Amino acid sequence: MSQHLRQRLAAALLEYAPRGAAIEPHLQAALHQVVANPGKLIRAQFVTTAVRHHGLPAAASLKLACAIEYFHTASLILDDLPCMDDASLRRGMPCIHRQHGEATAILASLALINRAYALVGETFVRSPARVRLEVNACLDRCLGVLGLVGGQAWDLAFARTERTPRDISRIAAQKTGALFELTILLPALLARPIQAERRALHSLCVYWGQIFQVADDLRDVISSSHAEGKDTHRDATLQRPNLVHSLGLPHTRARLARLHRQVARALSTLNAAPHPLRWTYLQNMADALATATALADRADTAAA
Amino acid sequence: MSQHLRQRLAAALLEYAPRGAAIEPHLQAALHQVVANPGKLIRAQFVTTAVRHHGLPAAASLKLACAIEYFHTASLILDDLPCMDDASLRRGMPCIHRQHGEATAILASLALINRAYALVGETFVRSPARVRLEVNACLDRCLGVLGLVGGQAWDLAFARTERTPRDISRIAAQKTGALFELTILLPALLARPIQAERRALHSLCVYWGQIFQVADDLRDVISSSHAEGKDTHRDATLQRPNLVHSLGLPHTRARLARLHRQVARALSTLNAAPHPLRWTYLQNMADALATATALADRADTAAA
Repeated sequence: MSQHLRQRLAAALLEYAPRGAAIEPHLQAALHQVVANPGKLIRAQFVTTAVRHHGLPAAASLKLACAIEYFHTASLILDDLPCMDDASLRRGMPCIHRQHGEATAILASLALINRAYALVGETFVRSPARVRLEVNACLDRCLGVLGLVGGQAWDLAFARTERTPRDISRIAAQKTGALFELTILLPALLARPIQAERRALHSLCVYWGQIFQVADDLRDVISSSHAEGKDTHRDATLQRPNLVHSLGLPHTRARLARLHRQVARALSTLNAAPHPLRWTYLQNMADALATATALADRADTAAA
Repeated sequence: MSQHLRQRLAAALLEYAPRGAAIEPHLQAALHQVVANPGKLIRAQFVTTAVRHHGLPAAASLKLACAIEYFHTASLILDDLPCMDDASLRRGMPCIHRQHGEATAILASLALINRAYALVGETFVRSPARVRLEVNACLDRCLGVLGLVGGQAWDLAFARTERTPRDISRIAAQKTGALFELTILLPALLARPIQAERRALHSLCVYWGQIFQVADDLRDVISSSHAEGKDTHRDATLQRPNLVHSLGLPHTRARLARLHRQVARALSTLNAAPHPLRWTYLQNMADALATATALADRADTAAA
């Protein structure tokens, strides 16, 4: 990502954050820590590019990018709680609940979700009713009991039962898949895609969700907490689904290569559709994820 | 409330709840317990009547009523958590986190919030952009750091500092006031009120929020857990703001009477506006709240 775009995104995350003169100081401090220390911003960068590509002004692109980042960050804050993953480190700092208490962490998470919905609403306010209904359905599906929230529930229930690698793949991909669907599909709806394009976009979200998750699993097994800025080796401790644990390293790598080929096929379908230029920006996402997974594997080499 | 409307609302709460074949069973069980055991449904009844009065079909009125109930219920689930009020009883049953665990309680709350946003979006999908922007801003303000979330943060911070009765009033009314603003203002936006009407509507929300809170404080001090179906006498234990504690019973009653007079004045302003028939249904809310506060005071007589 260009340094310039990263700076603009970082500024926007502060600008659109929940704020006001009368915010309770502990909540304000927690929110500031969260929005002033963003993650890699891969999704935000992608959303910004996509919204611009589909013809909306820069301000709208930054708003939607922040919305996705707030949804994502809110889910991380909650995942880290003692009753969930009981994590201690996130983005190189103590988790929000460790610094500001559990109650404030939960409230900060809710405040971010609330802000994110408002920003999505503003982005699509001029879109036709049909598009807005789809945006609505997309948020409902991706964030709710069959998306992010449901994925976390399955994650927590995972330790209680025996699972096949197929289950692991499905469960692990539900959360990341849901976030990718938000990231890819929300901006794409601005272009009113036809049925064939929708199918290809949906496949991309599934593959990318799985690629992202496999890279995450690789890092959890291979890397050190210091290098990642968050707790690693936690899947084994918490008995959470992890593909490297269930398939072994060579098979995991083979699966990753297959997923990258499937992505290439979905992209060529989109490039063959009636409006191929509509989707050129998707190649950037493919490239960014290929780089990220290569890095996850290099962490292995360094650790070995 | 008529038995018929209550039954329709109860059915709608089940129908619009988060669901799907692939929901994780613990989450499903928690959600079912919540939506199958609603509270008094005063807000839901009011929203249904208001939306019908402003010309939308019955289905839309039930959707918006469920949205408000889900937002409200989600905030109660979180308020009851060990890190917040650490409550044991709600609506005559053990709290969600006591039956299903904290993680599931948090996820159930998020699922309800997610569903509520989707239902609001569907209700207003055919409204003009200006109205939708106002709906958006209303949700942002009422649910966020200056509304429900912020009110809870102040509530939790309350024990840490000295407060005047004026502070207590302000803090206590922030949460109930925010919920009233959602309940009153969201349906009212369908009628595109003029500036004078808006001001009167806003005053009503503030007064009703305070009335509702005073009634709640009276019940907390006076009533038994058995009669209320939730923990009482908790404000003192948890050092939370409670007007009866800070003003005493006679002054609290005097304040209640003054609030009812202020409500009557705001209602007469609305009845004198260019379209007086627009707001006739607001009298029902005033009556319902007068009954509720009278009951809260009778609890005193019974306990005395």
